[in-house]
Amino acid sequence: MTYCVAFLLEKGLVFCSDSRTNAGVDYISSYSKLHVFQPADDRLFVIMAAGNLGTTQAVLNRIRRDIDRHHEAATEQADMKPAADGPSCSSAGATQGASGAPPTLLTSRYLFEAADYIGKLSVDVQRQFNTSLREAGATGEASFILGGQIAGEKHGLYLIYPQGNAVMATAETPFLQIGESKYGKPPLDYIGHRGLSLEDAARLCLVSQIITRRSNLTVGPPFEIALVPANELRVSRRVKLEKESDEVNRSMEVWTRTMREGLQRLPRFAWEQDPL
Amino acid sequence: MTYCVAFLLEKGLVFCSDSRTNAGVDYISSYSKLHVFQPADDRLFVIMAAGNLGTTQAVLNRIRRDIDRHHEAATEQADMKPAADGPSCSSAGATQGASGAPPTLLTSRYLFEAADYIGKLSVDVQRQFNTSLREAGATGEASFILGGQIAGEKHGLYLIYPQGNAVMATAETPFLQIGESKYGKPPLDYIGHRGLSLEDAARLCLVSQIITRRSNLTVGPPFEIALVPANELRVSRRVKLEKESDEVNRSMEVWTRTMREGLQRLPRFAWEQDPL
Repeated sequence: MTYCVAFLLEKGLVFCSDSRTNAGVDYISSYSKLHVFQPADDRLFVIMAAGNLGTTQAVLNRIRRDIDRHHEAATEQADMKPAADGPSCSSAGATQGASGAPPTLLTSRYLFEAADYIGKLSVDVQRQFNTSLREAGATGEASFILGGQIAGEKHGLYLIYPQGNAVMATAETPFLQIGESKYGKPPLDYIGHRGLSLEDAARLCLVSQIITRRSNLTVGPPFEIALVPANELRVSRRVKLEKESDEVNRSMEVWTRTMREGLQRLPRFAWEQDPL
Repeated sequence: MTYCVAFLLEKGLVFCSDSRTNAGVDYISSYSKLHVFQPADDRLFVIMAAGNLGTTQAVLNRIRRDIDRHHEAATEQADMKPAADGPSCSSAGATQGASGAPPTLLTSRYLFEAADYIGKLSVDVQRQFNTSLREAGATGEASFILGGQIAGEKHGLYLIYPQGNAVMATAETPFLQIGESKYGKPPLDYIGHRGLSLEDAARLCLVSQIITRRSNLTVGPPFEIALVPANELRVSRRVKLEKESDEVNRSMEVWTRTMREGLQRLPRFAWEQDPL
């Protein structure tokens, strides 16, 4: 299982993932689930993935291949073109698909187009393997969180379902989760809001991960965190917190103490106030 | 959906349930899910139920019928028996099934026998309706929490699965949950232990309910709580907390404030300590 959570804040985006992957109960290993793509200077994407590891890796590989192909095609075109022909139209970072091909991460004009693109790749990969997977009682389903910014547009955050459709985070619902999302949701519901600083949101995501991990061992460290400030088109901070790291241990201690103190502050029942 | 949670404490048992029942999204109503049975003075049982409402109600009705039948049979036997025959063997609260019939709540010698009995009733009811339910794409599955005490035995707590088998709470795992159990589990995992007072455990269960309700609207008030002190064979306190009750509102406020303060106490990231 996996747990990934991301926040859409006024000041930017925060991403946080665990790294536990398991196939059955006896093949448990650690894979990074947080991937940064900057195919051109005018755009930055962070993708987190949950679900069938085969599907998520295949989708990421196809994303990379599509970017490479586009760069190669642009290079060939530039090489073949006589210098006298005037300024090359492929010099801009975000080259529009000249042939009218569907947008990729490199050619999307809007973030939702990038989400649609990933959704389509995911559905295509699942179709390829679903028959044999179903015969084995398994599923190729995968979910993705896509966040980022394309120059000229606001930063945004999408959840891409296994069926390829996507929903975006909004002011009212500023966080999105994929994978084992229930255990860690209450703190996000209670104190998560889009006015948080990037660091506070990152701490909240880390707590959400830690309490999930305590209740479900298929979610596990290292936890990866990436901060993306609005309008900077870069990952400003990226950390990988190991199980025994100071941040994880101390966060766990603080949260345990917090809840213990909270329990003592909860209102007494009517009969406890009775002096008898 | 439903959420029920119960604690096995050194000092007794605590039960807490929500009251939301829904069939589809448009038939939402409120049913009590916490049921107290004291078929004889030497035994007390509390049963909470989650799952198909038809199954859980049918099981509870059969439990009551079996107790009634046993009482009726005992009365008839007593009426028919000449006084000269000596002391009646049916005068004890816990009458053993004389015919070697499987134990009911009235005749169980051990709590696990009562759990087996409920499991069997549940499986029987499910068998009766499963074919037609499955045709309609539904399931008759139900889970139960059974807690209580039979004189001469320690108090105990069981979770009865839809398949009829049961697990019991232990010192290491002092709480059991049925229904929508994930959202509310982390506080139980972190600060729940068998040394809690009945009231503290009840407060913790209430918080677990409240945060579940915040994240999943299919779980809802009124919340019912019952306290059963060890070796007293009675429910010492029973409360029903409505949505707008002071206890619910204040618990929610306290927990929100607790988490907000907790967030501020979490360790800073390395770069935040940097004076630059």
